[in-house]
Amino acid sequence: MHYHLYYWTGLQGRGEFVRLALEDAGADYTDVAREQGDGVMQAFLQGRHEGPRPFAPPFLKAGRLVIAQVANILHFLGPTLELVPDAESRRIQALQLQLTIADLVAEVHDTHHPVATSLYYEDQRPEAKRRAQELRENRLPKFLGYFESVVEDGGGKHALRQHSYVDLSLFQLMRGLAHMFPKRMATLAPDLPLLHALADRVEQRPGIAAYLASERRVAFNTNGIFRHYPELDAA
Amino acid sequence: MHYHLYYWTGLQGRGEFVRLALEDAGADYTDVAREQGDGVMQAFLQGRHEGPRPFAPPFLKAGRLVIAQVANILHFLGPTLELVPDAESRRIQALQLQLTIADLVAEVHDTHHPVATSLYYEDQRPEAKRRAQELRENRLPKFLGYFESVVEDGGGKHALRQHSYVDLSLFQLMRGLAHMFPKRMATLAPDLPLLHALADRVEQRPGIAAYLASERRVAFNTNGIFRHYPELDAA
Repeated sequence: MHYHLYYWTGLQGRGEFVRLALEDAGADYTDVAREQGDGVMQAFLQGRHEGPRPFAPPFLKAGRLVIAQVANILHFLGPTLELVPDAESRRIQALQLQLTIADLVAEVHDTHHPVATSLYYEDQRPEAKRRAQELRENRLPKFLGYFESVVEDGGGKHALRQHSYVDLSLFQLMRGLAHMFPKRMATLAPDLPLLHALADRVEQRPGIAAYLASERRVAFNTNGIFRHYPELDAA
Repeated sequence: MHYHLYYWTGLQGRGEFVRLALEDAGADYTDVAREQGDGVMQAFLQGRHEGPRPFAPPFLKAGRLVIAQVANILHFLGPTLELVPDAESRRIQALQLQLTIADLVAEVHDTHHPVATSLYYEDQRPEAKRRAQELRENRLPKFLGYFESVVEDGGGKHALRQHSYVDLSLFQLMRGLAHMFPKRMATLAPDLPLLHALADRVEQRPGIAAYLASERRVAFNTNGIFRHYPELDAA
């Protein structure tokens, strides 16, 4: 199967969670907008293309299927790419964890856009400062402490006792947060040894290492989710 | 199968999307915290109970499975409760739509809590006012216009050409938004005829009508997601 991934160019964004799964598995795929421009997605978003209408990128075309929402895409790809355990109960658990990662990703995004996605960060700075404090002090310890417990519950190496797309997403989360909140993540590090070791192992997987060294990996920047604004960080 | 639903007492919240599915299907279930108190959920949340650890309620116990995240629960229940089409491609589409509903629900919640879930609404009123304007003017038309198109694409009666858990969730969304933003929803109504008709039909389904008339249906209140604060509404 040749997959077609559709996502905004110029940023990692939510598309990156799907890219990491495709790259780790060595899947055959085209990152369509990077070849044809962002405009290529409009036919899908406006309902002028065969298949269900996505609300927003990323979406994946797999044969005639058009699949949107990151967790849904990974749930679909998991068995084929061998990135989820076979048992249905484990697929359910993987989806739950991925959705919890998605919840944190949404909170991280809203930290620099607490009022409106349609406004610039510069137009909502006071609100962002308040929200960043909440994220740093309450939400990050709560979410990351939860994921640390999940890895511990699963034997200490993986979210699901074996490699899965959830580990890939946890890697992305840890690297993104380290970029966005270097001071805060340094403070939290002693409480998150399993997550840090997991991220380091993921980084050395052949498919991931090759991807990270390639031009396909866009650097973290201030168009994406994980944005480094120094004024929003603190130990 | 007898299901055990775990969710906070005293509000509809995210648990309501699961309740509506169980009630519509006439499923045999216990709303555990309503019988034993909210404390009964702690063993699960602290990892002292068999099965995967949920991050937060709602979660469902089905035999030995413990399933968290609303969309995940509905994806699991769908086939058994006959609340999703059989084809895998349609199950994927249902999950995508449910996740998009979940995204809007999160934005609705953050409208009255734009800074911090841990603070009272009264402590984040100026930010809430700005965020509510963005939701009313940009996000609601975008999301609801999308769902209206989805129903239209599917023949005009359902999100998925037949009754499903997605229709039940769209009902809850429309009723919740009408409670929270009566002025704004009145303005948008002429553009959303299919969604309004869908919600009215869902309301008359035997299982739903009986549930809504029962004491099990908690009224919308200011502990839930859909809170009516008049100062956040406008035509």
